[in-house]
Amino acid sequence: MKDMSPFKLLMPREKALKEILNAVRPIERTERISLERAVGRVLASDVKADMDVPPFDRSAMDGYAVKAEETFEASQFNPVKLNVVGVLHAGESSDKPIKKGECIRIATGCPIPPGADAVVMMEFTEEKNGIVYIFKPVHPGANIARKGEDIKRGEAILKKGDLLSPAKIGVLASLGHKDVLVYQKPRVAVISTGSEIRDPGSPLEKGQIYDVNSYTLTSILLENGASVTRSPIVSDTIDEVRSAVLRYLDHDLIVFSGGSSVGERDVLVKVVEELGELIFHGVQIKPGKPTLFGLVEGKPILGMPGYPTSCLSNAYLFLVPAIRRMARLPPKIPRKVKAKMGVRIVSASGREQFFTVKIKNGIAYPAFKASGDITSLANADGYIILPVNLDVIEKDEEVTVTLFD
Amino acid sequence: MKDMSPFKLLMPREKALKEILNAVRPIERTERISLERAVGRVLASDVKADMDVPPFDRSAMDGYAVKAEETFEASQFNPVKLNVVGVLHAGESSDKPIKKGECIRIATGCPIPPGADAVVMMEFTEEKNGIVYIFKPVHPGANIARKGEDIKRGEAILKKGDLLSPAKIGVLASLGHKDVLVYQKPRVAVISTGSEIRDPGSPLEKGQIYDVNSYTLTSILLENGASVTRSPIVSDTIDEVRSAVLRYLDHDLIVFSGGSSVGERDVLVKVVEELGELIFHGVQIKPGKPTLFGLVEGKPILGMPGYPTSCLSNAYLFLVPAIRRMARLPPKIPRKVKAKMGVRIVSASGREQFFTVKIKNGIAYPAFKASGDITSLANADGYIILPVNLDVIEKDEEVTVTLFD
Repeated sequence: MKDMSPFKLLMPREKALKEILNAVRPIERTERISLERAVGRVLASDVKADMDVPPFDRSAMDGYAVKAEETFEASQFNPVKLNVVGVLHAGESSDKPIKKGECIRIATGCPIPPGADAVVMMEFTEEKNGIVYIFKPVHPGANIARKGEDIKRGEAILKKGDLLSPAKIGVLASLGHKDVLVYQKPRVAVISTGSEIRDPGSPLEKGQIYDVNSYTLTSILLENGASVTRSPIVSDTIDEVRSAVLRYLDHDLIVFSGGSSVGERDVLVKVVEELGELIFHGVQIKPGKPTLFGLVEGKPILGMPGYPTSCLSNAYLFLVPAIRRMARLPPKIPRKVKAKMGVRIVSASGREQFFTVKIKNGIAYPAFKASGDITSLANADGYIILPVNLDVIEKDEEVTVTLFD
Repeated sequence: MKDMSPFKLLMPREKALKEILNAVRPIERTERISLERAVGRVLASDVKADMDVPPFDRSAMDGYAVKAEETFEASQFNPVKLNVVGVLHAGESSDKPIKKGECIRIATGCPIPPGADAVVMMEFTEEKNGIVYIFKPVHPGANIARKGEDIKRGEAILKKGDLLSPAKIGVLASLGHKDVLVYQKPRVAVISTGSEIRDPGSPLEKGQIYDVNSYTLTSILLENGASVTRSPIVSDTIDEVRSAVLRYLDHDLIVFSGGSSVGERDVLVKVVEELGELIFHGVQIKPGKPTLFGLVEGKPILGMPGYPTSCLSNAYLFLVPAIRRMARLPPKIPRKVKAKMGVRIVSASGREQFFTVKIKNGIAYPAFKASGDITSLANADGYIILPVNLDVIEKDEEVTVTLFD
């Protein structure tokens, strides 16, 4: 009985992830894009304010721009009277200084006219025949938003690497930026291999099945900030796989899936060893053992298992952190919930186990069927990672479920 | 002193949200899109499997397809011998029944040939000159993935309204779907109003500021499943606002922002009352009081405050739940963390308060500057909602911060 397993020594999951994260590089290429489509992208240069926001002292209220000291004696029963010498509607401004005994009616947002140093809110005034009665004193500076109060000219307001949230987009807009320099999305080639695999939409012949993995991988990559090229299906031969690697080396990452049989699994190993460096082959996780990682001309090559569940579960574990690092996105922090196991689970694989569950009323039930079954994931709410050395989870035992959302 | 406030009775936040959610309708229009770009979209029809997955009994392992009963006597020291009468590589199949004393070498994924009822794993065999030695017995069915084991023909596998996760995309691929019927994204028109507002990229004249709100609103809408038309800036006059409402009534939702001064705030109120029905105007929240909601020809119109922070904070509170309901996306469940207040906060507005904070080492510091200040949100990690009846949060008091992520 000889050892047919192509796996010499399985790499623990954490170590495999570390190897991948060490090898992939954040994208350095940048592009300038329209501000209105920039949300969720990553800023590629520091932004220093080249203007004040607001650009001038402005009224924070509808009311009357006054000299504050003239209102100090005002009260509800002894209003101060001022001549209204002008009106500023939204968008208007006045250069004419106001003098003693004068004021200007002003709308929220208008520049404070010269000579005024406070705004009395409309609510505390009454205007009659060009005279306004002021019923409440204001202190100098009252109801004025100062020039540069929000953002000061020269201030380093956003940093290279900032994730562009709606509010940060707002900062750029307030400074008059119509477009923004961001890092390009990592370009990923996704390739399904296997002679038995057909693209959805084409008829199946005997022994053939539809390609699932290039669709699930494309989906998860798009959700995590990548730009994806889905390759036509490639046969599991050295020549075809080699030429696929070479064809997609202009991408930032090549992700293969397939090669579920021993001979086929070896094909990508051989190609990577021939063209570059194999970093690992075989991970101590179930499902998902036949995962490989290597570098060809510095470009990372990830080989995912052919089975749909193994492929997608390993995508959550390895591909998502890798692509987010390349895209300079913060690590994804999935929601976790506590649940009680609804049944006893036995795991004796000698590997960590990615175990999918469905949660009903706080109780977790297995959703896992088999590595080949995509419904193991499609019907699951989340997953549990069972440690290598854990054989049994008893019914009613508490588990932490990482949710798929 | 007369009451200049256009707000008769402020509506509590929860009630305002309920009014909005009652009035907006999930989109009924559908479209057929390519499966490889469908992640995150919402399925618009039930999907019944029109084939079995896998479509045939297949080998789950590399090994030998055998009649199980012929292996029952096998052991490590007394292997059973069988003639290897064929080889099935990936993608191949055989119609020739295997007979007593025979087996076929088979790759993972190949159809089980007629006559065989089990697969012996490669690891427990040794092949020499057309004869295979089998060192371990297998039971009938061993290492066979049954036809329909993953998905049964006729099974209702996905439901109308399902959010298309990578795994559900995989289910559709496994059934051979190349495209998928999804609900259209809600079409939203975003309109900034105000004579003092200029679009970023154009020069500012005295008294003018850049449009922030149409950018922040567009961003938050795109993040939550909408398709957005950003309108050119509209002046705050009855005629201009009326014609903007009428122009964008072919959209599913119209979001205005602006009208920060009393007179301007009235413009949208008047237009909505003239053309349709005003549902509320004025919300008991700070900042964000001057928010209005109404219906014109059944189309929801949301009027957001002109101040950037008020506008965006109310977008988180009202617009996000509304647009997700229209897009049929599940409610967003933001992450929340506990923190200790780093300073004493006094709030005596008589309204709920949306108070932004920055968190350092588990301690929350105020990030709020003023309603007009976009940096109140851009520099914040999250926000606290202070209840109406709460006046003070003491230093070191524990608060729950809702994170912006």
